[in-house]
Amino acid sequence: MRLARHGSAGAETPLISGSDGVWHDLRPVVGDLTGDTLPSVLAGVDLDALPVVERPGRFGPPLSGVGKVVCVGLNYRQHASETGAAVPDEPIVFLKAADTVVGPDDPVLIPRGSVKTDYEVELAVVIGREARYLPDEAAAAACVAGYAISNDVSEREFQLERGGQWDKGKNCETFNPLGPWLLTADEVPDPQALGLRLSVNGQVRQDGSTSDMIFGVHELVRYLSHFMVLRPGDVINTGTPAGVALGLAGTPYLRAGDVVDVEIDGLGRQRQTFEEA
Amino acid sequence: MRLARHGSAGAETPLISGSDGVWHDLRPVVGDLTGDTLPSVLAGVDLDALPVVERPGRFGPPLSGVGKVVCVGLNYRQHASETGAAVPDEPIVFLKAADTVVGPDDPVLIPRGSVKTDYEVELAVVIGREARYLPDEAAAAACVAGYAISNDVSEREFQLERGGQWDKGKNCETFNPLGPWLLTADEVPDPQALGLRLSVNGQVRQDGSTSDMIFGVHELVRYLSHFMVLRPGDVINTGTPAGVALGLAGTPYLRAGDVVDVEIDGLGRQRQTFEEA
Repeated sequence: MRLARHGSAGAETPLISGSDGVWHDLRPVVGDLTGDTLPSVLAGVDLDALPVVERPGRFGPPLSGVGKVVCVGLNYRQHASETGAAVPDEPIVFLKAADTVVGPDDPVLIPRGSVKTDYEVELAVVIGREARYLPDEAAAAACVAGYAISNDVSEREFQLERGGQWDKGKNCETFNPLGPWLLTADEVPDPQALGLRLSVNGQVRQDGSTSDMIFGVHELVRYLSHFMVLRPGDVINTGTPAGVALGLAGTPYLRAGDVVDVEIDGLGRQRQTFEEA
Repeated sequence: MRLARHGSAGAETPLISGSDGVWHDLRPVVGDLTGDTLPSVLAGVDLDALPVVERPGRFGPPLSGVGKVVCVGLNYRQHASETGAAVPDEPIVFLKAADTVVGPDDPVLIPRGSVKTDYEVELAVVIGREARYLPDEAAAAACVAGYAISNDVSEREFQLERGGQWDKGKNCETFNPLGPWLLTADEVPDPQALGLRLSVNGQVRQDGSTSDMIFGVHELVRYLSHFMVLRPGDVINTGTPAGVALGLAGTPYLRAGDVVDVEIDGLGRQRQTFEEA
């Protein structure tokens, strides 16, 4: 199943589609897609009983009321290398506040004074069941509701040159486009075999595969569950492959007017125009 | 005004009291105290019209649905010194997820495998109005709803020795006791003149004053608003004074059975018993 939300920002309504790609109105089943309602939707929905939505409107984030966004740093071998960092011994963890989440095609705001706004295509894992001190990767897999695209937008000066702790460059307004849809885990046989791509103004900047991850999705969920409780509606941004502006010759950071396209196999496509805040 | 919530965890109802300390049931005015309802309560409430609550039950966090908890590190001169760190040039910022927030007297869980669980008494600032690119401290002051006690519980090995970024040791389950009440800003003439104290099993460990802060409350709100949007219901933990276990001879970290008392002038008192997770 694909789960999504459409309509104007803050007033989205839920959608669902099966493998035929036809969107149906999910409102007869749940008022909205949230961490609270997600488990019941995952338990099964009869699509034939739901009205077809011929032309969805703007897509919002596939989930309302995201709990927390847990981010993993330097989790692709080539990205660790391009930033000059060693391959980490265990996952590097930081947080984005949920209020940074916007729709997949919403404008992204370059913070005032920023000269180092950067992009990061990431596989987002959406949690569907409480995860607390999980014993192994199989238990972790059972807690994953599904997957979506995340653009973990980052301000590198704020993150790295303003007194320590990355969160300062990760929580600016609109810094986490999410969606267009959540693809349920049963339709992703191997989350470590997905291509991820990102381009700026039509020029490919990132073209990687989740097979290059240092810590795989299920290991990340297991690991994190020993440091915090993961709850339905929480999101994990699992790290970005090589090709961010920080790591490229000439550090081509984003400027107002730039158009960023983000894509992951099976998870759709995002397009953001960057604007001055 | 003092604002609070009482009742069993997850089913708290709102309370209010004036300078006489008598608690009144706030339910005739708002169903609950949240970021959404806080502004209307701050606009003024006629206490005489509200039923008196003679004996409140367990206190929960004074706010339901806290948005984000923004934390400031090393913000007291003597605490920076005890940890061996330089006085920062600008605020060090990290995040706690809102789901770490528990009531002021709820048990706190020592994470499995933890040997370095530590305490931090902090002045918590509760935001009452959206703060975005604020020009000065006067504008920041207008965004502060009030103040509460926060215990910014921390696992130092997770925070400092497990691969980078403090968030890993700050987001364990139950790691943010908040309350017992929110004292509105109009009753705190100078937030930089409050005594803060914390004791473990009756022995004083922290005894400081917010006058020792490097960056004051209003400057912090102004500063943060240039890196993220602060919204009603967000909380800022403004840093801890000297005396944490990490900085004391023998590093006396918390063990199961320890009882921690936390107090700030005018903001009441917390008491937590620490337990194994």
